[in-house]
Amino acid sequence: MKLTIERTALLKSLGHVQSVVERRNTLAILSNVLLTAGPEGLSLNATDMDLEIVETAPAEVVGEGATTAPAHTLYDIVRKLPDGAQVELSFEPEDGQLTLRSGRSRFALAALPAGEFPAMSSGAYGHTFSLAAGELRSLIDRTRFAISTEETRYYLNGIFLHAADNGGVAVLRAVATDGHRLARVEMPLPEGAAGMPSVIVPRKAVAELRKLIDEADDDITVSLSESRIRFAFGSATLTSKLIDGTFPDYERVIPTDNDKLLEADCKLLHQAVDRVSAISSEKSRAIKVSLEKGSLTLSASSPEAGSAVEEIEAGYEGPPLEIGFNSRYLLDILQQVDGDAARFAIADNASPTVVQDVADQTAVYVLMPMRV
Amino acid sequence: MKLTIERTALLKSLGHVQSVVERRNTLAILSNVLLTAGPEGLSLNATDMDLEIVETAPAEVVGEGATTAPAHTLYDIVRKLPDGAQVELSFEPEDGQLTLRSGRSRFALAALPAGEFPAMSSGAYGHTFSLAAGELRSLIDRTRFAISTEETRYYLNGIFLHAADNGGVAVLRAVATDGHRLARVEMPLPEGAAGMPSVIVPRKAVAELRKLIDEADDDITVSLSESRIRFAFGSATLTSKLIDGTFPDYERVIPTDNDKLLEADCKLLHQAVDRVSAISSEKSRAIKVSLEKGSLTLSASSPEAGSAVEEIEAGYEGPPLEIGFNSRYLLDILQQVDGDAARFAIADNASPTVVQDVADQTAVYVLMPMRV
Repeated sequence: MKLTIERTALLKSLGHVQSVVERRNTLAILSNVLLTAGPEGLSLNATDMDLEIVETAPAEVVGEGATTAPAHTLYDIVRKLPDGAQVELSFEPEDGQLTLRSGRSRFALAALPAGEFPAMSSGAYGHTFSLAAGELRSLIDRTRFAISTEETRYYLNGIFLHAADNGGVAVLRAVATDGHRLARVEMPLPEGAAGMPSVIVPRKAVAELRKLIDEADDDITVSLSESRIRFAFGSATLTSKLIDGTFPDYERVIPTDNDKLLEADCKLLHQAVDRVSAISSEKSRAIKVSLEKGSLTLSASSPEAGSAVEEIEAGYEGPPLEIGFNSRYLLDILQQVDGDAARFAIADNASPTVVQDVADQTAVYVLMPMRV
Repeated sequence: MKLTIERTALLKSLGHVQSVVERRNTLAILSNVLLTAGPEGLSLNATDMDLEIVETAPAEVVGEGATTAPAHTLYDIVRKLPDGAQVELSFEPEDGQLTLRSGRSRFALAALPAGEFPAMSSGAYGHTFSLAAGELRSLIDRTRFAISTEETRYYLNGIFLHAADNGGVAVLRAVATDGHRLARVEMPLPEGAAGMPSVIVPRKAVAELRKLIDEADDDITVSLSESRIRFAFGSATLTSKLIDGTFPDYERVIPTDNDKLLEADCKLLHQAVDRVSAISSEKSRAIKVSLEKGSLTLSASSPEAGSAVEEIEAGYEGPPLEIGFNSRYLLDILQQVDGDAARFAIADNASPTVVQDVADQTAVYVLMPMRV
């Protein structure tokens, strides 16, 4: 294997693939990136056995071949090479080392045989559809904050992606919940997605996908099988195993007949919640929302710090009501609302509250109250 | 106590004083800031018993008085108030609470009596001199990286500041060392500093001082006694206890007759060391410097990662020599050299090496070699 590649192109691709590689691995080969020089340039492949990324970078290939080298070390070296540098990579099987040359630098990296690199079985993808980068970003950003981190409830450790019917309209839905809050976001079902399996995309795949989207301009092709999801970008492909579990019947926890409606300026409310929560104890983060006709009062108190109260104008016509929330969860949701106003639909201080952007009904957030 | 103050002014002063307050305190009062409303405005005072900061902010005082309130909470609240807000602070001894009002926000913070706040005994300062902010910054920046963090060698946990004589010129010197490297920086002795005691300024005082310098335009007045140092800015005063110990006789470890001289482009050398050290093991960080007439070769190797070698042009006329350094320490020093070229004076691969900026002799760095 022998090739020359621009440092900028190599750095970009290595940046993507090294991010999938875990810092500590029991299998040494999993710390490595698989480098394959072929007619299309240099292909870089990294995996943690659940998530795989393959990216191709333009390179001048003199000799085809493949090997593996430590991903983080290689990335660190290329990052430190001067801007605009040319990098020569070469590998002779008898040396057992990947040689990197650039300017007057020469690195010999411990290589492991390409044949030992675990390949993710390719399998057949029954469903394929395309999404604009912005659409996929929006589905992710408005749901991922609610993904559970509790490992015991592994089926909540990802985004539930599925086709659904909303009042006769076919939609693609992303749902995430940790049991305390839930986010459900939808968009028109893309062509080719009808009949797709309902899948749970793991947290780490979501995070890596999100990073790749930031650099994507074109549409992203999503392919699905019962056990895997694949996202194809221009020069990169991200393949993840799916979480093998059953996502709970989330529709049952989204109330539809909450009758006490509150409308508030989203930005003002966010700022006020943020301020008042400065007082709430580190542990509970509880704040109390007191509603009266036309006004909303936020309050918090803690034995150590003291108390806080702030009133803001709000559209509310219901009976006086006091309800408590985890301020962090409330802030998370308010941060997702792009429009000016947020609408809260409340039943009582023990039942889930529904939050929506007044100007955009594609996202529904559910928040469990706290006792205060 | 009752006053009104602009949020911007309060935030700036609180930002300075809260930084001195430790996150965890066994004495509750040490988590608080002492607030004193007087004819000159609002005075804010924080201490950790070793370091004290007093700052005065312009305020419209309606009723004079004093109390204390949790510094971090108060800072957090003020930070979250909208830009341009007016803040009203009031305290009635019978309430035991500091009340903060701004817009429609109202906070009541648990107050502790001002009388309980520990005052740092003022004492007499025998020596006082002034420094330009830039001069003090330069003394700190070029030495603080070498301060030891080993608590057992407490007398190295700060910057040794003292008057010295350098070839007949009276200078003010700052020295720091952790036993592996040493930095000695000097400037002409300011008027009033002659005969000053030699003092060790603790690491935390150095850090807080450095932050204040960034906002200082005017000269800074330094006052010294045997046990304390005080830095007076326009509206703030930082007072620190000194480290009660004897700084080692550092002159003995600065070799003066190292005869093998090496000159290298500082930036190129920094970049090359940074790259080559990507290979050196996390633990030792060792790199090898091999010198031949006119050239310098850096190399590193580790059993896991592989090996690296890079050559750069260098001015060297001595015999071939191999010497090892901790790459982080070498990078720290090269980062302090502002000029284009660094000069190394080497004796052999077991004795301390001296590094200087070719264009600026006010700083001397000493680096112990490593076995490689």
